[in-house]
Amino acid sequence: MYGALVSDVSEPSPAVVELLGMIAYAELLAFDRMAADARLAPDLRRRAVLCEMAAVEIINYRRLVGRLSELGADPEEAMTPYVAALQEYHELTEPKDWLEALTKAYVWDGIADDFFREVATFLAQVDRDLVLEVLHDSQYEDFAATEIRAAIAADPKVANRLSMWARRLVGEGLTQAQRMAGERIALTILIVEGSGDQAGVQALLKRLTAAHTARMAAVGLNN
Amino acid sequence: MYGALVSDVSEPSPAVVELLGMIAYAELLAFDRMAADARLAPDLRRRAVLCEMAAVEIINYRRLVGRLSELGADPEEAMTPYVAALQEYHELTEPKDWLEALTKAYVWDGIADDFFREVATFLAQVDRDLVLEVLHDSQYEDFAATEIRAAIAADPKVANRLSMWARRLVGEGLTQAQRMAGERIALTILIVEGSGDQAGVQALLKRLTAAHTARMAAVGLNN
Repeated sequence: MYGALVSDVSEPSPAVVELLGMIAYAELLAFDRMAADARLAPDLRRRAVLCEMAAVEIINYRRLVGRLSELGADPEEAMTPYVAALQEYHELTEPKDWLEALTKAYVWDGIADDFFREVATFLAQVDRDLVLEVLHDSQYEDFAATEIRAAIAADPKVANRLSMWARRLVGEGLTQAQRMAGERIALTILIVEGSGDQAGVQALLKRLTAAHTARMAAVGLNN
Repeated sequence: MYGALVSDVSEPSPAVVELLGMIAYAELLAFDRMAADARLAPDLRRRAVLCEMAAVEIINYRRLVGRLSELGADPEEAMTPYVAALQEYHELTEPKDWLEALTKAYVWDGIADDFFREVATFLAQVDRDLVLEVLHDSQYEDFAATEIRAAIAADPKVANRLSMWARRLVGEGLTQAQRMAGERIALTILIVEGSGDQAGVQALLKRLTAAHTARMAAVGLNN
C-alpha cells in the first residue's frame, strides 16, 4: 500500500511541486502565526520560546523553496494556490488568548505533520527525506502540551473551553482541506494512488483521526 | 577618548548587563516588527525576504541571552526595563503600509547600529566582539533602500510623505531614548565615561546625526 514511488522520475511531477508548495506556504504561515502568537505570551521567556520556534519554520521554508527552484519550479507560483484557503482558515480561527493560540498550533501541527509524514512515503527518496526533515520536532508540541495541561490543572473549566475550540479548529480546517483537495488535482491523485484506492484513503484519514484523538486526550481535551 | 575599558573586570558590570539587555530586547522587538511588517509586503517573495531577516534577529537574540546567562545575569530581568519605552515607541509609530514599515526599519536600524557600534568600543573584548557581530548586516538596509528608491522613482511625491514620516520616527525615538538614559544610570555613565566627558557625548550625538542625514539623502529623503 505504501511506497508507490509515483514521483520517481527525472521531470518534476506536478504532485511534488503542489506538495512542496503547500508545505512551503504552510511554513511561511506558521512563522507568521507563531510570531503573532508570541505577543499573547504572558512573559518574555515564553514569548522568546515562540519566536525561536518561529525562526525554525523560516529555515525549513528556505529549504523547501530551494528544492522547488532546483526542480525548475517557480516557488511563488507553487505557493500561490494555497494563499486564499489558508488565509481564510486563519481569519476564521483567530486565537483570542495565549491558550487558544497554543491549542491551535498543537492541533494543526500534529495533524499536518502526520499527514505530510504519510504523503512523504509516496515520494522519491530526495523529496521524502526533505519532507520528513522539515516536520516539526516535538519541542513545540511538548511546550504547548505542558502549557495546556498546566492551565487545565489550575482551572479545570479551561478543558471544556479548549475542547470546543479544538473542535472548531478541526471543522474549519477540514472545510479548507476539502476545498484544496478539489483544486490540487495532481496532489489528490498522488494521495489516492499512493494509498492504493479509496479504501486506502479512508484508512489514512482514520489513522489521522485516531492520532488526533490521542493527542487531545494526552493534554486532557475531549474530541 | 575611545577604548576606555570600564567593563574590563571579572564581575559583570551593571552597564554591560544593561546594554546587552537592551540589545537583546531590541532584537526580540525587531523580530516582532519585521514579522508583522511582512504581512504588508506586496508579494510572497518580498514577504519571505522580511521573514528570513526576522529569523536572523532571533539567532542574535539567542546569543545575547546566552552571554547574559554566562555573566550570571537573569536575561528576562535585564530586558524588562526596556519593554515599556520600546512598546510605547512602536505603538506611537505603527506603519500604515509597506513603505512606512521599510522606512521605519531603515531609519532605526541605521541609528541603533551606529549607536551600538560606538558603545561597543567602551566594552571589554568579548562583549565588544559580540555586540559588533549581532549588528545588522547591510542586506536589510540595501533591501529597504532599493524599495524606497524605486517607490520614489515611480512617484516623486512619496519622498515628501516618507521624509515627514522619518522625522516623526526620529522625534518619537529620541523622546524614548532620553527617558531610557535617565533610567538606565549605569549604561549612561558608561557612555559618558567612554566618551570622555559631556563634550565627548555631544560629539557622539553629532556623528550619529550626520550618519542618519547621509542615510536619508542616500535614498532621496530629506532630514
